[in-house]
Amino acid sequence: MANCLVAQSGGPTAVINASLAGVIRANQLNPVYDRVFGGIHGIEGVLEDKLFDLTDLPAREIDILKQTPSSALGTCRYKLKRGNDTDYKRLVEVMDAHSIEVMFYIGGNDSMDTVDALSEWAAANGVAKRFIGIPKTVDNDLVPVDHCPGFPSAAKLACQITHATRLDYDAYTRPEVFVLETMGRDAGWLAASCCATGDVDLLVLPEVDFDKDAFLAQVQAKMDATGECYIVVSEGAHYADGTYISAGESANDGFAHAVLGGAALTLKQMIVDAGIAPRGVVQDLSRAARSSNFAQSLVDVTEAYELGLSAHMHSARPGFTGQVVGIAPRTDLSAPYNPVFFAGPASQFANFVRTFPEEWILPDYQGITDEALAYFRPLIAGEPKIIYENGMPATIMPFNKR
Amino acid sequence: MANCLVAQSGGPTAVINASLAGVIRANQLNPVYDRVFGGIHGIEGVLEDKLFDLTDLPAREIDILKQTPSSALGTCRYKLKRGNDTDYKRLVEVMDAHSIEVMFYIGGNDSMDTVDALSEWAAANGVAKRFIGIPKTVDNDLVPVDHCPGFPSAAKLACQITHATRLDYDAYTRPEVFVLETMGRDAGWLAASCCATGDVDLLVLPEVDFDKDAFLAQVQAKMDATGECYIVVSEGAHYADGTYISAGESANDGFAHAVLGGAALTLKQMIVDAGIAPRGVVQDLSRAARSSNFAQSLVDVTEAYELGLSAHMHSARPGFTGQVVGIAPRTDLSAPYNPVFFAGPASQFANFVRTFPEEWILPDYQGITDEALAYFRPLIAGEPKIIYENGMPATIMPFNKR
Repeated sequence: MANCLVAQSGGPTAVINASLAGVIRANQLNPVYDRVFGGIHGIEGVLEDKLFDLTDLPAREIDILKQTPSSALGTCRYKLKRGNDTDYKRLVEVMDAHSIEVMFYIGGNDSMDTVDALSEWAAANGVAKRFIGIPKTVDNDLVPVDHCPGFPSAAKLACQITHATRLDYDAYTRPEVFVLETMGRDAGWLAASCCATGDVDLLVLPEVDFDKDAFLAQVQAKMDATGECYIVVSEGAHYADGTYISAGESANDGFAHAVLGGAALTLKQMIVDAGIAPRGVVQDLSRAARSSNFAQSLVDVTEAYELGLSAHMHSARPGFTGQVVGIAPRTDLSAPYNPVFFAGPASQFANFVRTFPEEWILPDYQGITDEALAYFRPLIAGEPKIIYENGMPATIMPFNKR
Repeated sequence: MANCLVAQSGGPTAVINASLAGVIRANQLNPVYDRVFGGIHGIEGVLEDKLFDLTDLPAREIDILKQTPSSALGTCRYKLKRGNDTDYKRLVEVMDAHSIEVMFYIGGNDSMDTVDALSEWAAANGVAKRFIGIPKTVDNDLVPVDHCPGFPSAAKLACQITHATRLDYDAYTRPEVFVLETMGRDAGWLAASCCATGDVDLLVLPEVDFDKDAFLAQVQAKMDATGECYIVVSEGAHYADGTYISAGESANDGFAHAVLGGAALTLKQMIVDAGIAPRGVVQDLSRAARSSNFAQSLVDVTEAYELGLSAHMHSARPGFTGQVVGIAPRTDLSAPYNPVFFAGPASQFANFVRTFPEEWILPDYQGITDEALAYFRPLIAGEPKIIYENGMPATIMPFNKR
């Protein structure tokens, strides 16, 4: 009887472990594989034969794994490059040593490209190994899906911090601006999602070249009208020439790239220097938003888990390789939310970046359209029942630390 | 029949509105006062006669008020200075105009000093008005209490972010340090509380003069031993001469005080410059930690609410003025948690700063003692049942925005 391998790659999320839990649990419900091995630290550890036997993980641990943020197997930034026969052969050697026929890889664009490359290479070289992808990324930038597991929970936490800090900001009378910075180097999905709470006055995305004068005019208009201006900026916001906001203006001392909340800090200083407000508050979400378990979206954790189940189920079919499972794009955003699962070629998931749609962006930094709000709202709906221990959401000991 | 007034002052917290809810609800349970007025934007708005009638706030709104972060009445930084007869007389004028006999003031050290000063002045001038304090502060720096409402929830959120970011950090193999910065200019309570999760390798507090060489030696030792070093620093950490960490070293360009996460950033750069780790990740909690409703401590929200009830109940006794309600210091930290409520003279609450006890600090930045852990753990215990709407914890429209 053959075994399978599951590994995680890229940046951790709030629900990447739920997909892992799905694969493990599916095999307990239908033992297609004799053993389910976890690869420690992604492909990097697998090449070093670092595996952990997950087959018989107790149900209670699986439940807690689903609510454990970050990557419980450990992650890596190591990329399996196309044409790297040495790594490919070593991988097959490790798989053979453990009678592993199928590898599930949970990750973002790069990992889906790895799934594509490995399955191509296996076919070309008559190697009877199969490779299946399960997507995750807080950036939400994969092309063929409606959204990507990990993003809804990051968005839900970002929305909660947006609303809480807006209330904090609103409690004061003194004139100041508030600038919140989110992750999002190339795509503004996370920053845009903050608008779902109705708290954002101005939104600065990487999808729109930054125009300082036009932006400051809008800040002035908000301050004139209400005495307040709550701004959300994506870390990747940039000028027309590609220069990041965080690299210019007041932070032009070469220190900027190391500065936490660089874009937010720069916008705040820009506003103060222009005399629009005497001061400002800056909040950077940074790492805190991407893999927490105190604001998981029920939709997200459920889908991540079910994608793990789905990948395992599909894998029972011989010849199923080079495929990735996902949630199909919604055709009608006004219809009740009803996610449709599908599997498609990994090549469609790799090497493309889906930016936030231009037609969903209101002009003059005014936020997002109603259609965009209709897209976001169901994703952040619902809260899982979290198991607490000693006042903290329970988490499992990561497998890479055992 | 006389009326009462309740107002909020200083920095918002996660539960300052629960104390407000307690005052409102107490008067519904026992209508000692005909009307309960809320002062908009603290004493600043009261002097301008900006009041909001809270007497008949529906029970459902009171429930949601309890879980609404920030100051629902709005806050101010305006200080009623001792000997400022003009302001005092104007305050009495406003109170008279609305038949207000008692004022409840929810705030930190300064507000408790205001309660003390006003009650003294009223006694000296034969003014039949009474002033009662309800404490709050995320800094936890009031002297005569075990802890201060607002702090446990801030600590609980800080602990959750500590654990989540530690898991995120642990997922990687690459050598880097992680530095988390918390609020806490003069006292290190919030930074110290992060140690309750067992995730902190090194802790840098304002209570211990910073010694760069000694600190770097500890970072080196942790990196040598485990390849990891997770550091928590309080924003107020400083050298023996009083210079803030955030003002020195790599951030010595005068830009530092504007830099978000200045202390964390400086420590990270210091470690990189010393060649101990090639890189580091910095996370600043800033505003996000102090007034959120997605990580309220059940102990905290319950106590804040009950302190509101208690203040109202005490106020039914004629002559009760210049007093503040609070939770008495625990005498045995190993006993089951059982908060004891008391009322004491406002003078004991004002003008003193309780720093984190030196005897609870381990040497060489190694964190805190078991006794300190025993102090923190019950405070972050339990989670209130949060009412959600559209995927977000429900909040009421702030009174200062109605």
